[in-house]
Amino acid sequence: MSSFAERFLKLAQSRSPLCLGIDPAIELLKQWGLPASAAGVGNFCDIVMDAMGDRVAVVKPQSAFFEQFGPDGMQELVRVVRMTQERGALALIDVKRGDIGHTLEAYADAMIGPQSPFGGDAMTVSAYLGFDALKPLLNKATERGAGVFVVVRSSNPEGQTLQNAKIADGRTVATALADDITVYNANISKGIGPVGAVMGATIEGSATETLASLPNALILAPGIGAQGATFSDLARNFGNAVNRALPSVSRAILSKGPSVAELRRSIQQHCDQALRMRETNNA
Amino acid sequence: MSSFAERFLKLAQSRSPLCLGIDPAIELLKQWGLPASAAGVGNFCDIVMDAMGDRVAVVKPQSAFFEQFGPDGMQELVRVVRMTQERGALALIDVKRGDIGHTLEAYADAMIGPQSPFGGDAMTVSAYLGFDALKPLLNKATERGAGVFVVVRSSNPEGQTLQNAKIADGRTVATALADDITVYNANISKGIGPVGAVMGATIEGSATETLASLPNALILAPGIGAQGATFSDLARNFGNAVNRALPSVSRAILSKGPSVAELRRSIQQHCDQALRMRETNNA
Repeated sequence: MSSFAERFLKLAQSRSPLCLGIDPAIELLKQWGLPASAAGVGNFCDIVMDAMGDRVAVVKPQSAFFEQFGPDGMQELVRVVRMTQERGALALIDVKRGDIGHTLEAYADAMIGPQSPFGGDAMTVSAYLGFDALKPLLNKATERGAGVFVVVRSSNPEGQTLQNAKIADGRTVATALADDITVYNANISKGIGPVGAVMGATIEGSATETLASLPNALILAPGIGAQGATFSDLARNFGNAVNRALPSVSRAILSKGPSVAELRRSIQQHCDQALRMRETNNA
Repeated sequence: MSSFAERFLKLAQSRSPLCLGIDPAIELLKQWGLPASAAGVGNFCDIVMDAMGDRVAVVKPQSAFFEQFGPDGMQELVRVVRMTQERGALALIDVKRGDIGHTLEAYADAMIGPQSPFGGDAMTVSAYLGFDALKPLLNKATERGAGVFVVVRSSNPEGQTLQNAKIADGRTVATALADDITVYNANISKGIGPVGAVMGATIEGSATETLASLPNALILAPGIGAQGATFSDLARNFGNAVNRALPSVSRAILSKGPSVAELRRSIQQHCDQALRMRETNNA
């Protein structure tokens, strides 16, 4: 089976690298005239899937907005993952789980691989308990050809204090995590490895060093649109790494709903921009 | 309505402070002769509830072991929370969620308070994206009289590099988080505030400083039993803070199943030890 990185890179070329975030927040459900319930989330997902077309590489449902409606909401998460895959895109479940040992393995068993109940192609994780503690999950992902994205540099300013803290050898927490990802990936693959990084598209300054420490990882870049960054920012900040980036857009697209036509137009425009960002870099 | 801290401190005195972890891992289900399915998890929870008696203050289901069986597994999480509360104990859902803004609010809406689908009295969270980013969730918890436990010092060695990293003013990441908790709690309450800390029972060395920075917080202390710490370790390492501790035991008790009689005896013994730990400290 091909790895998540291989599948993504192929889609990024033939479609566009766009990662479409599915965030059925209560305010958006209201704005779309849908009930604040699991059924409303289901309608929301149906509308987005109708509008999606065949140019999106990755769909990223945010688990919190499904969990807020309990097990019935989680059933809609299962369904949107399946609908995404039926449309030829990859499903990246944004759950930011983090724990140790068997607990972490259970999260892998929950979220990634075709045998898992949620069935994602990839998931996000959090490393407050240490990168090495993530290994049981990373190993399961590798076996299954799934991807894992470790939050390294978040797009929110409140995360900087912790992410810029210095470990004993002088590296920042974020750069040390990036180095850990690089070593892990190099042991698995000569190309891009199974472990990616989440790096806010708004990053600058000390984050550039972190990015330079990620030569063999995919990079999920949230923060485009509603959070203030543009594709041009991403191209400028990421340099050549833009070829390995999953530029993620949620609110800027979803705010066009519930009109399927307007959503479709916005998705197409964002796909064009995402593709152009790659092509400009490679020109 | 009384706060989570008030409810816990009352139960700790009248029952015992024991926090009973519910970890239906696949190996445990097998060991108990139960199917590896949501139904097996349901049976597992029924057996633990049968054995629980009326001395446990807090029950802590680990979400990963419910999520691994998809939405049906999550339905068992809803059920075990309700069964816990029907038995007069508090339900602390161990989910270690972490994110920003509306996403984090959705996690609060999912997990805590009687109106939420999972209905927990408290939940655990992770702060890789910064303590301030947690505030929307902490504020919702405060309004609802619910508790939140931020992972500060984990019981696993792999977490030390990050948790001991130094922020710009020289404090460790863990101590800075502890200080943030203290300030937040002091703004809410003159006593113990709504935000607790997760501090592994095995902590020592630099963690003592972190603990000293937590004068007005409950402390969830996992790692007793299977992870190597004892109640005596906890009493020695925690000093007076032991009065605010939720000593958490999972595997050491659960390994006695599926015999209800043996589970009941082990739970009683652990309740006795947990109560004695408090009383010795206060003698």
